[in-house]
Amino acid sequence: MIKKLSHIGIAVRSLSEQIPYYRDFLGLPYLGEETVEEQKVRVALFQLGESRIELLEATSPESPIAKFIETKGPGLHHIALNVDDCAAALKKAAEEHIRLIDQTPRIGAEGFKIGFLHPKSSFGVLTEFIEEPEIHNEKGQGI
Amino acid sequence: MIKKLSHIGIAVRSLSEQIPYYRDFLGLPYLGEETVEEQKVRVALFQLGESRIELLEATSPESPIAKFIETKGPGLHHIALNVDDCAAALKKAAEEHIRLIDQTPRIGAEGFKIGFLHPKSSFGVLTEFIEEPEIHNEKGQGI
Repeated sequence: MIKKLSHIGIAVRSLSEQIPYYRDFLGLPYLGEETVEEQKVRVALFQLGESRIELLEATSPESPIAKFIETKGPGLHHIALNVDDCAAALKKAAEEHIRLIDQTPRIGAEGFKIGFLHPKSSFGVLTEFIEEPEIHNEKGQGI
Repeated sequence: MIKKLSHIGIAVRSLSEQIPYYRDFLGLPYLGEETVEEQKVRVALFQLGESRIELLEATSPESPIAKFIETKGPGLHHIALNVDDCAAALKKAAEEHIRLIDQTPRIGAEGFKIGFLHPKSSFGVLTEFIEEPEIHNEKGQGI
């Protein structure tokens, strides 16, 4: 069902503080920034082989990222796995009694269809399914 | 400096409890298990595109994984980034005033040279450099 890792989401206090570490020290290609209003986050993207690093900064104290940092501190937040069909993947998960945050896909960063599994079902690893068009990831093996 | 993601390390309470989720539900190719005595962990490996998932179960209460689970619960533990030369990458990090856990490489799972940065320098993301022979990862883009 899963083809590859789309991205790793990292909760950060400040994008501007951490971008130099990923871009200049690690030397990862910086792909740009965008705001995802629905999630109340500002996102900075870096290429990492066929995958990406997503730095996530809260734009409001009600953002899930602000709440995460409050309880756990900044750090690894979630992993996103490429699926061919997000709706079908969520349906299959529900049939296999995997608890879901999203019963049906919604639109995430870059306009892709996404859906989150509940970390209770994935043993503490917040996991996202993401449906990306094949052209998006030229280094990938196809999705 | 960084070519791709080698693996994501996930702290788990029980390999046998979680292997079915990754192997059967997500359908990731299961690559096997090994014990890393020095780290007091038992590791189960899964292929995920050009990268891998490493599930880490403590084999002793003194294992860093046991301590991690005690304070944070099971979940995302570290990311490992492929470098051409682990010793050179650690040296460059030290020169750039990045705090290190390992000043020089040591041998990790599968016998590869590894070295950890201190999470204080990587903003809460425990980060490993890993030098893997190119042949190891046939799906990769070369390391």
